[in-house]
Amino acid sequence: MKIGITGTGSYLPEIVTKNDDFLNHRFLGRDGSEFEHPNATIIEKFQAITGIAERRYAKPELKTSDLGFLAAEKAIEDAGIDKEELDYIIFAHNFGDVTHGKIQGDTLPSLATRVKHLLKIKNTSCVAYDMLFGCPGWIEGVIQAKAFIRSGMAKKCLVIGGETLSRVIDPHDRDSMIYSDGAGACILEGDSSSGEILTHASQTHANGEAYYLYFDRTYDQEGCEDTRYIKMDGRKIYEFACTHVPQAMADCLNKSDVSIDEVKKIFIHQANEKMDQAIIKRFYRLYGKETPTEVMPMIIQEMGNNSVATVPILFDRIRKGKVENHGVEKGDLVIFASVGAGMNINAIVYRY
Amino acid sequence: MKIGITGTGSYLPEIVTKNDDFLNHRFLGRDGSEFEHPNATIIEKFQAITGIAERRYAKPELKTSDLGFLAAEKAIEDAGIDKEELDYIIFAHNFGDVTHGKIQGDTLPSLATRVKHLLKIKNTSCVAYDMLFGCPGWIEGVIQAKAFIRSGMAKKCLVIGGETLSRVIDPHDRDSMIYSDGAGACILEGDSSSGEILTHASQTHANGEAYYLYFDRTYDQEGCEDTRYIKMDGRKIYEFACTHVPQAMADCLNKSDVSIDEVKKIFIHQANEKMDQAIIKRFYRLYGKETPTEVMPMIIQEMGNNSVATVPILFDRIRKGKVENHGVEKGDLVIFASVGAGMNINAIVYRY
Repeated sequence: MKIGITGTGSYLPEIVTKNDDFLNHRFLGRDGSEFEHPNATIIEKFQAITGIAERRYAKPELKTSDLGFLAAEKAIEDAGIDKEELDYIIFAHNFGDVTHGKIQGDTLPSLATRVKHLLKIKNTSCVAYDMLFGCPGWIEGVIQAKAFIRSGMAKKCLVIGGETLSRVIDPHDRDSMIYSDGAGACILEGDSSSGEILTHASQTHANGEAYYLYFDRTYDQEGCEDTRYIKMDGRKIYEFACTHVPQAMADCLNKSDVSIDEVKKIFIHQANEKMDQAIIKRFYRLYGKETPTEVMPMIIQEMGNNSVATVPILFDRIRKGKVENHGVEKGDLVIFASVGAGMNINAIVYRY
Repeated sequence: MKIGITGTGSYLPEIVTKNDDFLNHRFLGRDGSEFEHPNATIIEKFQAITGIAERRYAKPELKTSDLGFLAAEKAIEDAGIDKEELDYIIFAHNFGDVTHGKIQGDTLPSLATRVKHLLKIKNTSCVAYDMLFGCPGWIEGVIQAKAFIRSGMAKKCLVIGGETLSRVIDPHDRDSMIYSDGAGACILEGDSSSGEILTHASQTHANGEAYYLYFDRTYDQEGCEDTRYIKMDGRKIYEFACTHVPQAMADCLNKSDVSIDEVKKIFIHQANEKMDQAIIKRFYRLYGKETPTEVMPMIIQEMGNNSVATVPILFDRIRKGKVENHGVEKGDLVIFASVGAGMNINAIVYRY
């Protein structure tokens, strides 16, 4: 049975925050120390590495589940299905619904239930659950949907990735400039004529790597001791990703019996431009090849890193002709890949 | 292929809190009003309905992931498998790791990753993720593991349900006496000679019911406006459960082609003794039968309601002969069933 993506949708939050908007932030080191360089220099270096020039934040009245709903509505319309036919709603996120200005995530009820509620789906057999798998959560949700379809437990699944990272970041941490908000969604169907998942790969590295991304207090030594923010050991993550992601992608591609030369596009988690470039370069090097130009579309420049949402937003925008110089055509071989908290890695080799 | 449970484990927290320990609490109504009856009367009525005489709370130094790890260790040992053979670790919870005395849940990294870390599993192909599905989360995790095994994506899965509800309850809410802490786990395997999932059923009711369980502020009008606690509309949940759970269980049983007369035990979510009794009575009434004595083991009297953990703890204790007058023997037909936030309902018909 061919299991494929028959529709996509995404929601881009309205508030655009540019790098210059961080000029007056008080950035601090891990121990609370001031940096010797001015913010202009810090920001310049940040942009040179990550590629990020601006990012989008959700309006205060919207929560992660609202973003997911707005993306899901478009995916359902794009697939041209009746929403009542959905067997599963899988919502990948990591922090729940965080109200603007508050610190507690709310997952009661689950975000998938909230989306089902907003979509006004009456069919009680449509099972709605949330899934936490770090940034690779949306790709993992697609893999889970594939399992449900292949095992005969479902025919049509809605998979959403959404996050409002702007509400879990420490303003005194330079890394806070990386994170952003957004949501993407897709419809996965069995017996699809519009595409096919050929192979997938998933990994969890939980020994020394488990806490490379973690929840911790602000770098401001006088800040609240109890409030937790997303924190990361950027250097270790960079090395980890460059070491393990290329091989995981290659393992996935090799299982599919498709030649590396057939790969048209790689939709990789928009984590950091330099890191993504290094991953793809090493991936091609495993096959003794140079990275083809335009194989890796990037939208991080304008979107930042919105975790689970980067890959479905990127894929949706490319399908709909919204990314300059990039497109996909029926029959194209593409790869989805991600890496993030867990530390989790996954990849899907897909015939569009 | 027969997919069955080959091992179970559970962890019961050490702190025992008796109903009398609530005698000096200041219970308030939804609008902050005092009750006319003294606490002794409130507690007596509470016990008459819920059956709860005492409940267990985790020691301050333990978090939900620790409880899950302690249950998982026992399940792996009970199944007699090599932990490195696990293909999946699925952790069902709803609030993440809540540190004692703090209000933020921590899911970075996922609790499944934390358990994998504590188990010191090296195999990176063992995929660890968290799943949020209200109280029915553990049963839903078993259903997901079944999908992975049936679709050829896994052979052995560890499914954990764990929660520390004592850290998300409003002390001024009478319902806070219901909730408790705990964890249960099982190993699910393909080609199992020790049992078989015959059928399953899952539902999400997300229209008017979506917010019957919700996150909201304390009933104390002078308490913190921002801190959120688990809250419920008990009467609506009672009516909802009695209306929908019996039919969902019957649908699941009817799909299995097994006679109601074969059912030996029903392992139902330990939510509320009177409600559970009413559900089972209505379930048997659908077949024109009276409820057999001892078909429904209850441990809520001593455990309270620890959400996702009630069913795996109950099943583990009965398998190991720790519940008086109750046991299971090879070949017995049993039903697992749950209901909770979402509002989600699920059931599994299982040949032990």
